[in-house]
Amino acid sequence: MKQTFTVDLNCDLGESFGAYRLGNDEAILPLVTSANIACGFHAGDPGVMKKTVRLALQQKVALGAHPGFQDLAGFGRRDMAVSPEEAFDLVVYQIGALMGFIIAEGGVLHHVKPHGALYNMASVNPALAEAIAEAVYKVNPEAVLYGLAGSALVKAGEKLGLKTAHEVFADRTYQQDGTLTSRRLPNALITDHHKAVQQVVRMVKEGKVLSQQGVDVSIKADTVCIHGDGAHAVEFAQLIRTELTRQDITLQAF
Amino acid sequence: MKQTFTVDLNCDLGESFGAYRLGNDEAILPLVTSANIACGFHAGDPGVMKKTVRLALQQKVALGAHPGFQDLAGFGRRDMAVSPEEAFDLVVYQIGALMGFIIAEGGVLHHVKPHGALYNMASVNPALAEAIAEAVYKVNPEAVLYGLAGSALVKAGEKLGLKTAHEVFADRTYQQDGTLTSRRLPNALITDHHKAVQQVVRMVKEGKVLSQQGVDVSIKADTVCIHGDGAHAVEFAQLIRTELTRQDITLQAF
Amino acid sequence: MKQTFTVDLNCDLGESFGAYRLGNDEAILPLVTSANIACGFHAGDPGVMKKTVRLALQQKVALGAHPGFQDLAGFGRRDMAVSPEEAFDLVVYQIGALMGFIIAEGGVLHHVKPHGALYNMASVNPALAEAIAEAVYKVNPEAVLYGLAGSALVKAGEKLGLKTAHEVFADRTYQQDGTLTSRRLPNALITDHHKAVQQVVRMVKEGKVLSQQGVDVSIKADTVCIHGDGAHAVEFAQLIRTELTRQDITLQAF
Amino acid sequence: MKQTFTVDLNCDLGESFGAYRLGNDEAILPLVTSANIACGFHAGDPGVMKKTVRLALQQKVALGAHPGFQDLAGFGRRDMAVSPEEAFDLVVYQIGALMGFIIAEGGVLHHVKPHGALYNMASVNPALAEAIAEAVYKVNPEAVLYGLAGSALVKAGEKLGLKTAHEVFADRTYQQDGTLTSRRLPNALITDHHKAVQQVVRMVKEGKVLSQQGVDVSIKADTVCIHGDGAHAVEFAQLIRTELTRQDITLQAF
Repeated sequence: MKQTFTVDLNCDLGESFGAYRLGNDEAILPLVTSANIACGFHAGDPGVMKKTVRLALQQKVALGAHPGFQDLAGFGRRDMAVSPEEAFDLVVYQIGALMGFIIAEGGVLHHVKPHGALYNMASVNPALAEAIAEAVYKVNPEAVLYGLAGSALVKAGEKLGLKTAHEVFADRTYQQDGTLTSRRLPNALITDHHKAVQQVVRMVKEGKVLSQQGVDVSIKADTVCIHGDGAHAVEFAQLIRTELTRQDITLQAF
Repeated sequence: MKQTFTVDLNCDLGESFGAYRLGNDEAILPLVTSANIACGFHAGDPGVMKKTVRLALQQKVALGAHPGFQDLAGFGRRDMAVSPEEAFDLVVYQIGALMGFIIAEGGVLHHVKPHGALYNMASVNPALAEAIAEAVYKVNPEAVLYGLAGSALVKAGEKLGLKTAHEVFADRTYQQDGTLTSRRLPNALITDHHKAVQQVVRMVKEGKVLSQQGVDVSIKADTVCIHGDGAHAVEFAQLIRTELTRQDITLQAF
Repeated sequence: MKQTFTVDLNCDLGESFGAYRLGNDEAILPLVTSANIACGFHAGDPGVMKKTVRLALQQKVALGAHPGFQDLAGFGRRDMAVSPEEAFDLVVYQIGALMGFIIAEGGVLHHVKPHGALYNMASVNPALAEAIAEAVYKVNPEAVLYGLAGSALVKAGEKLGLKTAHEVFADRTYQQDGTLTSRRLPNALITDHHKAVQQVVRMVKEGKVLSQQGVDVSIKADTVCIHGDGAHAVEFAQLIRTELTRQDITLQAF
Repeated sequence: MKQTFTVDLNCDLGESFGAYRLGNDEAILPLVTSANIACGFHAGDPGVMKKTVRLALQQKVALGAHPGFQDLAGFGRRDMAVSPEEAFDLVVYQIGALMGFIIAEGGVLHHVKPHGALYNMASVNPALAEAIAEAVYKVNPEAVLYGLAGSALVKAGEKLGLKTAHEVFADRTYQQDGTLTSRRLPNALITDHHKAVQQVVRMVKEGKVLSQQGVDVSIKADTVCIHGDGAHAVEFAQLIRTELTRQDITLQAF
């Protein structure tokens, strides 16, 4: 009997704001299986949210909230010393706001993935992670919590009984403790598209990744982060789809 | 057989923001029957919204969204030339955001009342009114739409099949066409508390108000706006409660 | 003796914000003679302002402040019912903020041109126009006030003793009362680049423009608004430069 | 010959925003010698800034800019991971904005004191401190930089040749390394007003403060931070003025 493998391809979408366009949502949406939709704090605005929910529904892509810090000028990428309670509050607010559009468009909230600095901080800060997981649980206990594979965030979700999706990165290298190589270090990025795809295939099929220290590390790969902008984003998304499918890996939302 | 009368007392609440305190929510909440909770655009922040939803639930006060223009500096009181579609979007966003906290706290969204300039513009602009009513309908067709008595806003709600509440003001005088006397005119305000209460009693029991032109005008009074701040807000709320009750008018959310 | 003609080419610049890029500042700057730099309310952020001031200084382009409404989501294009005093305050604030960078970079503030809805409202609202002119005068009485040719704004500036620049548009048609044809009407835009340039040449040399009603209208053309984004912005800027120079019109900041 | 002593009393002012009132500026201004005026990022708005500059000029109180993080919801009190360049930019922007009002009102910028988390981070982060000092220097090399006594911020200012004012706190206790006792520890605050005043007198006259470890620490006291809000703010300001004057300490801006 043949073993079957499944993985989700997720992408940050709806990051335009007012007169500002960002990303290439129309082109990338048909290539992914779940959409993390910005909720107006670090990116996105009400009109963009509505349009992105519509586009994702048309493409039958799973709808996720992508809450971030209230830092539009920094695109939510700058650490902010929020308390766990403040994190809870800003996540509830943003999930709710997106749910307004999802309900209006007749869809269902599928998942929540924190954005940028909030995601990174919640990966290593249990109190923050628990506050975020609690926010998701209180607003929709059926929603899947996406977090860095093996992080404090997915652990906090599991503790609460939430479904969680361990997220891996195609184009980032890993350390032997299972964390991502810091972008400040050389070799943090995998620029060769085929190597990036092969890393994902192995993570999905074998549950392993070769760390920068030369030893294999166990990793759970429920969902792969696909970048939505950049010169080669669409091209890479097409490549990874083709390759994963060719390797008999089913692509579908978690 | 004795005729029974009922009216709702609503109040704008949750208008604090960050380090800034506004209003006297703890004191006014036990005196009203429905709460219009600011949603973060013209006032309120996620933490304030959560706390206000909690307080209102404790007092068994009906929970309403109070969406406004994204103009914190102007407290949502300055007209902004938004398109009907932009109005739809900002109302969906804000209702959704509040629903996040209502769901998290185990409550139910009861109504929506636009704030400030959005309320005033929607009173006289049918396209804007229809966009707002549509937003409420799409997010929660069971929610009651509160609008100025006889305005384009309540008409738009009725057209869509929404429950609507005609709102009257205790402390404002009326023109013979049923509109409020502009604040720029003398005699716009009724400063005598007893006169203000008597105006409400008559609006509720007789469906009439004496206009500034000296003739009676028909008016529907489903809900009365009670101010939450100001030196005498609590005192007036107590007075109107006592007096309406004494007049056998039942106070309850619409 | 030959008559000499001079005109200024101005362009809105520095409209990027955070992670969002807008316009093509590097390409357009060498082609214009004065820059209207967004000041952070409707567009621009502190980092973008610094960079834009530097670029403009390198290209010896005159530095202007481009204050707008505090409406990033609407790009300052939505009318807001601000009081004249509020307009004064927001213009002083934004000119000052830009002056911070101009001083830091060793430049001089040359002019102020209100943006978008603030510009349009000040064209026809004398009280608003006077508040804006007063703001410019109080912060820097040597600065030139740019406004729509013949508008309330330039009149308010002249009344205060400010230098003013009457602004014309190459790609917009005019009415016989000297106002621009509303964008909501057909024929508002001149899409033929050569016709647009010829309209400018005639406005500069003859002080006249052929209105949509078929009669000539007197117009003062001190400065021409050049668009900085759009598919053909750079191409058109090059064309108008070449053509005006060929017609012996000197291009320089007012 | 009698030795003379001088100290500055500074206070954070102009922290209201839109409809929100904070502090008691009219009462506290006559009691201090320098005002740190919020610049619109963490608190304050253009109208409040203008009014505060006017009030301070009337009271002959020295005018200072009080730039903070762009975090109105957190009142600038939450650490944000800004780069030194971002810190430079936001300080230049905010000083400039305040200078707009100072010029409009005929005053002179006297000093700059960073606010809240920016102040605290710059006390211990030399790169951030240097960026802030550079911003002040580039916009106005005559301005005095206020920073925590002995901190990285005043050191950065001194290195650049700026005048600097070492700031001490009346109501905070000190550690033997000269830093403030963290607010998370017991005994961080001095609630006895007379003890607080005596601590200041000794810091000014002897250049010493008794640390929590029971040993004297050298400290430079150029300016004392006076709180502008809280129940006893005005009362304490009056007490410290009276007491310092009685001790022959002259109160004047640095």
